Amino acid sequence: MSPASATRSKPAIGEFELIARLARILAGSGQHESVLVGIGDDTAAALRVGSADLYTTDTMVDGVHFRAGQTPWRDLGWKAMAVNLSDIAAMGGTPLYSLVTLGIPAGARAVDLLTMYRGIREITGRFGGRVVGGDIVRAPVLFVTVAMVGAASTVRGKPALLLRSNARPGDLIAVTGTLGSSSAGLKAMERGLNSRPATRLARSHTRPSPRISEGQALVAAGVRTAMDVSDGLIGDLGKLCDASAVSAVVEAEAIPVSKDLRSLFPDDFLSYALGGGEDYELLFTGPRAAIGRAMAALGPGMATVIGRVEKRGSRSRSSVSVIDGRGRPVVVERAGWDHLDAPQARSRGRPR
Amino acid sequence: MSPASATRSKPAIGEFELIARLARILAGSGQHESVLVGIGDDTAAALRVGSADLYTTDTMVDGVHFRAGQTPWRDLGWKAMAVNLSDIAAMGGTPLYSLVTLGIPAGARAVDLLTMYRGIREITGRFGGRVVGGDIVRAPVLFVTVAMVGAASTVRGKPALLLRSNARPGDLIAVTGTLGSSSAGLKAMERGLNSRPATRLARSHTRPSPRISEGQALVAAGVRTAMDVSDGLIGDLGKLCDASAVSAVVEAEAIPVSKDLRSLFPDDFLSYALGGGEDYELLFTGPRAAIGRAMAALGPGMATVIGRVEKRGSRSRSSVSVIDGRGRPVVVERAGWDHLDAPQARSRGRPR
Repeated sequence: MSPASATRSKPAIGEFELIARLARILAGSGQHESVLVGIGDDTAAALRVGSADLYTTDTMVDGVHFRAGQTPWRDLGWKAMAVNLSDIAAMGGTPLYSLVTLGIPAGARAVDLLTMYRGIREITGRFGGRVVGGDIVRAPVLFVTVAMVGAASTVRGKPALLLRSNARPGDLIAVTGTLGSSSAGLKAMERGLNSRPATRLARSHTRPSPRISEGQALVAAGVRTAMDVSDGLIGDLGKLCDASAVSAVVEAEAIPVSKDLRSLFPDDFLSYALGGGEDYELLFTGPRAAIGRAMAALGPGMATVIGRVEKRGSRSRSSVSVIDGRGRPVVVERAGWDHLDAPQARSRGRPR
Repeated sequence: MSPASATRSKPAIGEFELIARLARILAGSGQHESVLVGIGDDTAAALRVGSADLYTTDTMVDGVHFRAGQTPWRDLGWKAMAVNLSDIAAMGGTPLYSLVTLGIPAGARAVDLLTMYRGIREITGRFGGRVVGGDIVRAPVLFVTVAMVGAASTVRGKPALLLRSNARPGDLIAVTGTLGSSSAGLKAMERGLNSRPATRLARSHTRPSPRISEGQALVAAGVRTAMDVSDGLIGDLGKLCDASAVSAVVEAEAIPVSKDLRSLFPDDFLSYALGGGEDYELLFTGPRAAIGRAMAALGPGMATVIGRVEKRGSRSRSSVSVIDGRGRPVVVERAGWDHLDAPQARSRGRPR
């Protein structure tokens, strides 16, 4: 079973290396004083225009991130916006405006595109990020690119961002909602399951809810470290640990899993919860007091403490360990879901 | 000869109608108070975040807007940014930040993408709009999407924008630089010409200069109507007239044409100047006093008055007339370069 194959795809060439080299090329161009967080540093770029502004973009390509004809058009519109809204949520910000670019192949039907836009309207009506412009181009393949700007939250008048790089040994690790439902929902759809639990899981995959208000609540509670879970808990927590130069220990039995996932996949639910992507929940860390305030602000059952941040081991490499209820290690390879063992290779060789 | 075929392509389905319908779907979603100029109203969206902010996006798709392997990668990077910078220039604004999305097919070479980024760095170093983030996705076709944010110019503390809809009867019509060189340069490249004039024309096509400082000077001079010439003078002036509910008369002999274009295409230069796209010069109108101030600010030879704005005729449809030195009409069909006569069909059926 490979829940990680459910996550969104990267090109087959070395993405991390490519981004690093592209960023180096751009490093020399123009002024820098107003950049708070730039390329490669986090989910979204954070810049000071008026207050701090957040910029993010995500693209969905037919045959890579969805399949036209199988993915309902309205769900496609919802999800194309949701992944961008989730990037803003992961910084603790407020989505403001979006530009939507459609690449349209010959034979595309206007009715389908209009239906897709109804999904866009539905999610922006609920979470913000209204579309204010865009571009339509002819292309051999259907794709949807969303660029979104948001406002950073402020604390005592200063921008306060959730970053990946702020985790410190001793921090607690927590997550909103439940994990694994999205990838399990995709599996349920692929198997043609249509029970109530299967349908609800599928909806987690097709209609993820960006955690906008939750991200804002985290900032207000004093939490300063978060990311959204797009590539799976173990993989994303590994990125957070890399960025913060720390390690993490996660208690398997503490990981929140929905009843539906547990009932439909009684043997595999932990694997989905640890490795399945596209849940778009917020993974966050902070000192005990801040996490306590955050849990209280989010409300009962809305977030769960799943582990703790520790110092790196002797080899100065970040690790993510999963332990059972008696403290014994659960065997989980850090990059277990794509069968590659180098951390950088996680997004490199695999289709997402 | 069809210079219009040199302009960038739109999908085969009815773009204007599609955009209008997509915009109607979104009309009901979210708050409106901070939108100064929204979907379909002009080149870029203008929104009030801190001061007024401008948002624009443009995409270049391999096989549609360029040909990988023929277009030098560095030029591709330059041009992908130039078309967006030109949108900001056409509003009179200052480019701030960009997000760049690359769709990458299997077999794409990192060295080519890095070279493309050097072109991006070069133009942003010169004109602004520095890249602060983006996305890389696997796709069956190479494409580059740029989303750019800019700041509107202000006059006495208030945002002042160049719009298409502000032209009034009695206004003079002027244009920066020269027209037709880009499309003639493309033709020269297609014919394999490599004389000095041909090479300089080709550079107009591959390395257009966005008129950032010129747009800002127009705003400061009191000009409030402009657009960039991307689809050809006649077509773009027609759009400006439609948006302002006016007509226009252009003097053929006043249209600025480069020596290179005149020498290389002695019989066709007027056709290129009237119908060729992608010059990215600014076409602007204003009362005589404002145009006078603008011409002085831009400097000698940097802009040319080419005609005047008039009331619409009896049928309440905008028209663009071209006259010779004796006031006699030069026969120019308004949509002459794509062999379609309905104004809306200009961008509808033709490849760009």
